[in-house]
Amino acid sequence: MNPTASSGRSPWPYPGPRPGDDDPAGGGQTIADVGEFELIDLVTKGLTENDQVELGPGDDAAIVRTRDGRTLCSVDILIEGVHFRRDWSSAMDIGRKAVAVNVSDIEAMGARPIGIVMGFSAPGDLSLTWVRYFIQGVREECDRAGVSLIGGDITKARDITISVTILGDVGPEGPVLRSGARPGDLVALKGRVGWAAAGLAALSRGFRTPKAVVEAQQVPQPPYGAGLEAARAGATAMIDVSDGLLGDLGHIAQRSHVTIDVHRSALGMPEPIRAVGQATGIDPYVYLLTGGEDHALAATFPPGALPEGWTVIGTVGESSTPGSWAVTVDGRPWEGRQGYDHFH
Amino acid sequence: MNPTASSGRSPWPYPGPRPGDDDPAGGGQTIADVGEFELIDLVTKGLTENDQVELGPGDDAAIVRTRDGRTLCSVDILIEGVHFRRDWSSAMDIGRKAVAVNVSDIEAMGARPIGIVMGFSAPGDLSLTWVRYFIQGVREECDRAGVSLIGGDITKARDITISVTILGDVGPEGPVLRSGARPGDLVALKGRVGWAAAGLAALSRGFRTPKAVVEAQQVPQPPYGAGLEAARAGATAMIDVSDGLLGDLGHIAQRSHVTIDVHRSALGMPEPIRAVGQATGIDPYVYLLTGGEDHALAATFPPGALPEGWTVIGTVGESSTPGSWAVTVDGRPWEGRQGYDHFH
Repeated sequence: MNPTASSGRSPWPYPGPRPGDDDPAGGGQTIADVGEFELIDLVTKGLTENDQVELGPGDDAAIVRTRDGRTLCSVDILIEGVHFRRDWSSAMDIGRKAVAVNVSDIEAMGARPIGIVMGFSAPGDLSLTWVRYFIQGVREECDRAGVSLIGGDITKARDITISVTILGDVGPEGPVLRSGARPGDLVALKGRVGWAAAGLAALSRGFRTPKAVVEAQQVPQPPYGAGLEAARAGATAMIDVSDGLLGDLGHIAQRSHVTIDVHRSALGMPEPIRAVGQATGIDPYVYLLTGGEDHALAATFPPGALPEGWTVIGTVGESSTPGSWAVTVDGRPWEGRQGYDHFH
Repeated sequence: MNPTASSGRSPWPYPGPRPGDDDPAGGGQTIADVGEFELIDLVTKGLTENDQVELGPGDDAAIVRTRDGRTLCSVDILIEGVHFRRDWSSAMDIGRKAVAVNVSDIEAMGARPIGIVMGFSAPGDLSLTWVRYFIQGVREECDRAGVSLIGGDITKARDITISVTILGDVGPEGPVLRSGARPGDLVALKGRVGWAAAGLAALSRGFRTPKAVVEAQQVPQPPYGAGLEAARAGATAMIDVSDGLLGDLGHIAQRSHVTIDVHRSALGMPEPIRAVGQATGIDPYVYLLTGGEDHALAATFPPGALPEGWTVIGTVGESSTPGSWAVTVDGRPWEGRQGYDHFH
């Protein structure tokens, strides 16, 4: 690990301003200089819409069409100083993250994302350049996930606050709920766990390496399409790992009234996470088992139904008393916190 | 008008704590004392769901069902210090307002609201009592409007931030867009304008009277059901008056490529608004014509199609050059601001 150097800096790989940079290309304009309605234009100009969007931005509400009349809806809030820091993440990264974490919720239902409505609140002195790159990030991640930006609200605030609501099409395969896991099912994972948490640990200590985990913290890489894949294969329960693997598997165990045992060796130990563990003196399995924000998908499948690219990481068992549930690691209770609580 | 007295106070008419009161019944507990997951329980316990909700809170996403597969979606953000003040509005009022302003957007499309997902962000030291009353307000207004609370997200923040996304069912009558007004149509209004703005003017000067306008600022009273009514009657364009009558009619004029003339005398002059005008030295028509936040519905109708309870306040005319638009008052341009811009 190398501490961040403020001189002799390495090239910044993103098109957006480097985190912490002062508006290198914007001529110093702020969003207060252009006003709410020009900002709305900036967000909405030249947007493309997928074929399930009947009415995009510009009226009192947007309209989407679903195949069987069932529409999924989920919301996630990102707040500066709580979910991101402008000196740790570029505007592009934050825009991409805001979309990715929401798409992941629709994926976790075994469904297809359609469109997002975005609430954007910020102080008037925020640089217009920052907002431009943020919007570019939003659009790029929307393209990657196949979703359209269909509406929103823009207001003043002390802290940058991003509220993304996503709509999805559940279709005939879904929904895959948290409540369907059955004893005998396999627990499987697609995507990464622990990377973003290890990245946060590095950033918190003033480092910008290992680069792979720092970038994982800046922008998650959810396995787009894997949710629909799992639904088609017959997944019995599914969740996206946003708060930590053990905590989120706990939600499945609780809702399904089952026990889940995670096999630690099945997770492997990625080198950059091991490195962060060494540098911080923290058992690296803490990152793997309790780190959130990578937005992997965890699902349960009947044996034999596992789709390609998923890794079996555990098993579902019968709970000892009706209605009880538990999550264990290699047969034993996990000592320590299981995930993230916003107020604890 | 009477300045607010901090002693000899009048009885507080709401079940919630009086604005500014310190947590009179909560034993001093904060939301950090109970944590995120207990808060979620508090919000979701005992919720009832209308028959278009297929899946409520508790999974990665909620599911609603619409009649023809088309789902409306809109979002509004309310932020402490920007959209409300805790010393001006009770927790109940703020909860009610958060729902009302969103229902109004669905009404303005000529549609039926189904459910809301709510993002709630707050500092850890916020009193649990405040949150309880806030939730009570959310639930009461949901009941009033016939919508269900179907999901959400709870996070930490410096300022209380409420993000409400509402889903609606557009049905065969709708949608009524902003773009359908035609020369010869009548412009009509249902609901109040100017009351909330006059209330804000009073509160800003330290007054809590006239009570009627102060209460209008604390909780809007949108004319629930009027949007669907207008759609059925054949409204050609519709909008909810959230930013000010002239500004919002401007959106219809712009989208429809027409001119709109508002007849000032048709608006009447409610006594409490006249009183605020007198006390502040501001032309009370400024409140009526440019004040937002009452969430009346403004719509255009072909002559003869006007439903009961709507007041004709103007006429739609041909624009002089193709693609141009204008809003006038008694045939003349309005001098002064037309509505609210969040950054100007």
